[in-house]
This record gives sequence, structure tokens and C-alpha cells, in this order.
Amino acid sequence: MTEATLILVRHGQSQWNLENRFTGWWDVDLTEKGEAEAVAAGKLMLEKGVLPTVAFTSLQTRAIRTLHMALDNAGRSWIPETKSWLLNERHYGGLTGLDKQETRDKHGDEQVHIWRRSFDTPPPPIEKGSQYDPGNDPRYAGIDVPLTESLKDTIARVLPYYEEQVVPQLKKGETVIISAHGNSLRALVKHLSGISDEDITGLEIPTGQPIVYPFKDGAPAGERSYLSEG
Amino acid sequence: MTEATLILVRHGQSQWNLENRFTGWWDVDLTEKGEAEAVAAGKLMLEKGVLPTVAFTSLQTRAIRTLHMALDNAGRSWIPETKSWLLNERHYGGLTGLDKQETRDKHGDEQVHIWRRSFDTPPPPIEKGSQYDPGNDPRYAGIDVPLTESLKDTIARVLPYYEEQVVPQLKKGETVIISAHGNSLRALVKHLSGISDEDITGLEIPTGQPIVYPFKDGAPAGERSYLSEG
Repeated sequence: MTEATLILVRHGQSQWNLENRFTGWWDVDLTEKGEAEAVAAGKLMLEKGVLPTVAFTSLQTRAIRTLHMALDNAGRSWIPETKSWLLNERHYGGLTGLDKQETRDKHGDEQVHIWRRSFDTPPPPIEKGSQYDPGNDPRYAGIDVPLTESLKDTIARVLPYYEEQVVPQLKKGETVIISAHGNSLRALVKHLSGISDEDITGLEIPTGQPIVYPFKDGAPAGERSYLSEG
Repeated sequence: MTEATLILVRHGQSQWNLENRFTGWWDVDLTEKGEAEAVAAGKLMLEKGVLPTVAFTSLQTRAIRTLHMALDNAGRSWIPETKSWLLNERHYGGLTGLDKQETRDKHGDEQVHIWRRSFDTPPPPIEKGSQYDPGNDPRYAGIDVPLTESLKDTIARVLPYYEEQVVPQLKKGETVIISAHGNSLRALVKHLSGISDEDITGLEIPTGQPIVYPFKDGAPAGERSYLSEG
């Protein structure tokens, strides 16, 4: 029997979390509070002796910097690290860049409620070449970048990546950390904790709080817990 | 014909650079000045439009943090990154942790001069389990850690790694950055610029200054230059 540990961390507060704007694939950086959350996550891992041996993250600055600051503070900056767009945040399409009030003004309360809470209704696609279109960002060169995503679409890219890249590390007994985003982590928690399509859209994943799953032989061996409460 | 670029960066000033102590494999961190050098290296790459697409570094904090701070400031934190002990600093054996005066007092001026300037005479091996022995550091688990190295020994591990891991990226036309150490970078500069055994020991590689080689079809296509002067 091989025991392993999976640690999930949502990036610390970003500038657009603070401004209450739909971020998605737009590459905003952490706020000072977000940086402090990342440092605290690293110190907590060190204090609890839950020390990552392998790291995964997205192609987005806020998740990468959260990972680096956490690992630096856990004395683990030297572990191997793999980045993939498949762990990116959900792509919010045409809502990208709008704040919650602008979105309501433009699309109406009811429609916004549907987009925020629906499992499989994507927002309208982003206009190619518009202000917040990530399509020309060099980090996505050669990638068939989506124009919008529902949570279901996000899950459909996150889970195969998890199965192919992360599970083999867990089967080997590694302590894996994934630094990612609200919705890419919802995809994983839905899968690992068996949460329904209806319930997952309401599950909030707090920023900078390491969530831990115990693993045996590549499968979860218990429910998730916050490392701060362990 | 495939053009590519190789960027070499020695980590910014470390605490033991400042204290004039033999560092080798001991994992000291950057000073504030060293952090500022790393930030400046990144801003310089951005300003000059010399933007890395693939990164390599050692398993040592000072080189990893220099890489991350430089890439953050060049807008390139998202590029793939590989870490290997084969890019570590030269292992200074029993000199590790001694300052230059302590070394002279213990071993005599003449012997110290030989160790500092000899191409193939290693210092005495480090004592297993002594204060600065990295042998038990978990980052080196499973690695046959050396007990001391001459510059020649360092070259003998750096060059095969360069040929196997870095050259294929240069053949593909990537802009490769290697963030490493005084002696692991001497190994590369000796090879790429054809410097003799006698002359290489006297070549100083300044901290935090990106050095650039143009490449064609996986081979250097010109002499090195400092990016700051390009």
C-alpha cells in the first residue's frame, strides 16, 4: 500500500478578486494581501510538516506566484514543478473584465445569476481581439484557446490532466501540491469528494488555504480538510 | 537554419558572497542587493526584448529565486522550468562555510591559492555529518552527492547535462535561460567560448548580469556579450 498526500491551494487574493471583476484567463497579479496569504500557506505547511515533493500549477501569474511564495516559505523551492493551461481558471468569455455591477447592467440580474450558478451554461464567447481576449498572449501559443467555458467545460479539461499527470505521482507516494484557481479546484474537489452538479457551483474555495486529501494507492483515502485545522 | 539564444545568469549576491565565505552546496539565500539584481535582470530582458521561452536552474535557493524574480519581471513566469543538481555550484568540500580568513589560518596562504586557482585540485572532502554537509538535505535524496569537487569535476557533470537537456531546446530555436552559479557557469563559458584550463579559473562571472550567446542550429554563432551592453 502506498500512502500519499494531495494539497490543493487556490491562489491568494488577486487585484480583480478585490475589485469584484470576472477574471478568468486575464492575467492579474496578487494583491499584497494575496502575497501574504501565499507566504502564510507556506509557513503553515512547514509548521505542520506537510511538505510537497512535486508541484503543479497553471500558466497564470497569480497561481504561479502563490506556488513559489508558498514553496519558498516551506523550504521546498527546489521540488519539480509543471505548469499547464489545463489547470487555468474557468474562461469567463465575454464577461472577462466586467465587474459584477457592469455585468448586471449589461445582461440583467437573472441572466447573471444563471451564468454564476449554472453548471453547464457558458457566458457569451469573448470577442476575438477584444481588450481582455487572451488569444494573442504568447503563453497560449499553439493551444486551442477556448472562447468561453461553463464549469462543466472546465471540468472536462482539468480531470483528464489530473488523471494523466497527477495520479501517477500520487501512486508513487509523492506529496503533490496543486496551486490553481477557484473553478479548476472545484473540478478536482467535485471529483474527489463526489459532489453533485447542483451543489458544486455553490462551493466556495477560500484563497490561500491549503486543502489536504489523504491518498492510498492513487485514490482518496478520506475526506478533505483544511491544513490549518489539522 | 534555426536561430536561438542562450542566456546565462549567475544568481544575485548571496549572504555568503557578502560574508566572503566558501558556499558551494550550502543553501544560503539572496541578500536584498541580490534580490534587486535579479529584479533588474528581468527588467533588462523585458526592455531588450530578449524573452526566455525555456528555463533551467539548479536545486539551490539562490539560483531558483533569482530565476523566478527575473522571469516575474520579464513577464515570463509561465515558461517551463527544469531544476537539476547537475547545475549546482562547485562543491567546496571541507572549505564549505569557512570565510577566506579562516581558510588561510587553517590551511595557509599558499594552499588556499592553489585551491582557488587550480583547475583540477579539489579541496579536502567534507566530513560526513559535519555542520555544512548537504548529504542529508532531502533535495539530494537518491543522488550520489560529491564530497568535494575541482572545477574540472564540476565541468564533468555540467557539460553532459547541457548537451542532453539544453542543446535540444536550442536546436528547436528556443530562447533558453540558465540561472546558476559562478562555477557551473564557468563550465559553460569555457566550453562555449573555448577558454583554456589555465585561463578559466581566473574568469569572473558577475552576479545578476545576463550573458547572451547567439546560436544557430544548436551551436554558438558568435561570442558572448552582456545583455546590458547589447
